[in-house]
Amino acid sequence: MQERVSGKKRSAEKTPVEPLAHKVVLGIDPSLRGTGYGVIHLGRSGPKAVAQGTVKCGSKLERSHCLHEISRTIREIVHKHQPTVCAIEGLFYAQNVKTALTMGEARGAALAVLAEAGLEIFEIAPRKVKQSIVGYGNAQKIAVAKMVQRMLVLKKLPAPDAADALALALTFVHLHKRFAIDPAQKI
Amino acid sequence: MQERVSGKKRSAEKTPVEPLAHKVVLGIDPSLRGTGYGVIHLGRSGPKAVAQGTVKCGSKLERSHCLHEISRTIREIVHKHQPTVCAIEGLFYAQNVKTALTMGEARGAALAVLAEAGLEIFEIAPRKVKQSIVGYGNAQKIAVAKMVQRMLVLKKLPAPDAADALALALTFVHLHKRFAIDPAQKI
Repeated sequence: MQERVSGKKRSAEKTPVEPLAHKVVLGIDPSLRGTGYGVIHLGRSGPKAVAQGTVKCGSKLERSHCLHEISRTIREIVHKHQPTVCAIEGLFYAQNVKTALTMGEARGAALAVLAEAGLEIFEIAPRKVKQSIVGYGNAQKIAVAKMVQRMLVLKKLPAPDAADALALALTFVHLHKRFAIDPAQKI
Repeated sequence: MQERVSGKKRSAEKTPVEPLAHKVVLGIDPSLRGTGYGVIHLGRSGPKAVAQGTVKCGSKLERSHCLHEISRTIREIVHKHQPTVCAIEGLFYAQNVKTALTMGEARGAALAVLAEAGLEIFEIAPRKVKQSIVGYGNAQKIAVAKMVQRMLVLKKLPAPDAADALALALTFVHLHKRFAIDPAQKI
């Protein structure tokens, strides 16, 4: 797997193999009190959302327990839907060191479980997701959610964090489906 | 447990109960490529180190795999030594947002496992550890390691990261043993 991915940049023009290798893609938008997740299945009739939601942790819940809740939920999702690849939100705008530390903690709790389950993990910047989904890097959250709803033919507008997670999964597919010039970064 | 801890500030002058509640203390100094850990046992003849080491991850290992290695190792230690409380390095000096994110990830991977195992988790600032162990908040790492060696009667000087972890565990005991005016913060 690793060889195929690392060798992609060079061979991308000829062999867009990624989407065939992965049938179930997990998207994760990590945050301490509201981690969004979304699972899409890649069938012949296009991508289909099979799970989505938010790991909600109230402000009174201790930080370590929030992190446990994140890892527990992701473990359950992976066990249930058996994704083989995960797209996680990458470089972001952090106001300060403290915010970055907290966001890092949520990411760490998620990544440890994902690596344990043997998923390939790719990092995608929020700006890239917005560009891929809405066509505009500074798009608003609601625009992303609406586009995700349309692309996955969802009856209801997904909740913001879940929509971001589904958008990450869809972006991964987009980036690796076509003649990938600038694929997601493996971490 | 929670009540006893949260009520400590008020009743600390009369009832220094913490050290009796915990017989095995785990110290963790998290970092992506070199997480230090140390377990001390509190017996009648004073604290004794029962385990110490570093989770080493080479620079070529993918980040997510390092995080998995951290969580896997901590899970093993907890299973083997059954600590009931963990002292983890708290507020630190981070050069920038990126460093903070990476350090946060290592913390998150560790904290999720610790919370899952039901340990009480306390955060102690590095400065406080140095003050408690060496008596000087800006003490050098080697001074901390030498003092830890003396306090725990170790034959060899512990490795830097393991020494920091053992120092965290010892500081937790110090802070909660006496008439705690400024105990560690539960997270």
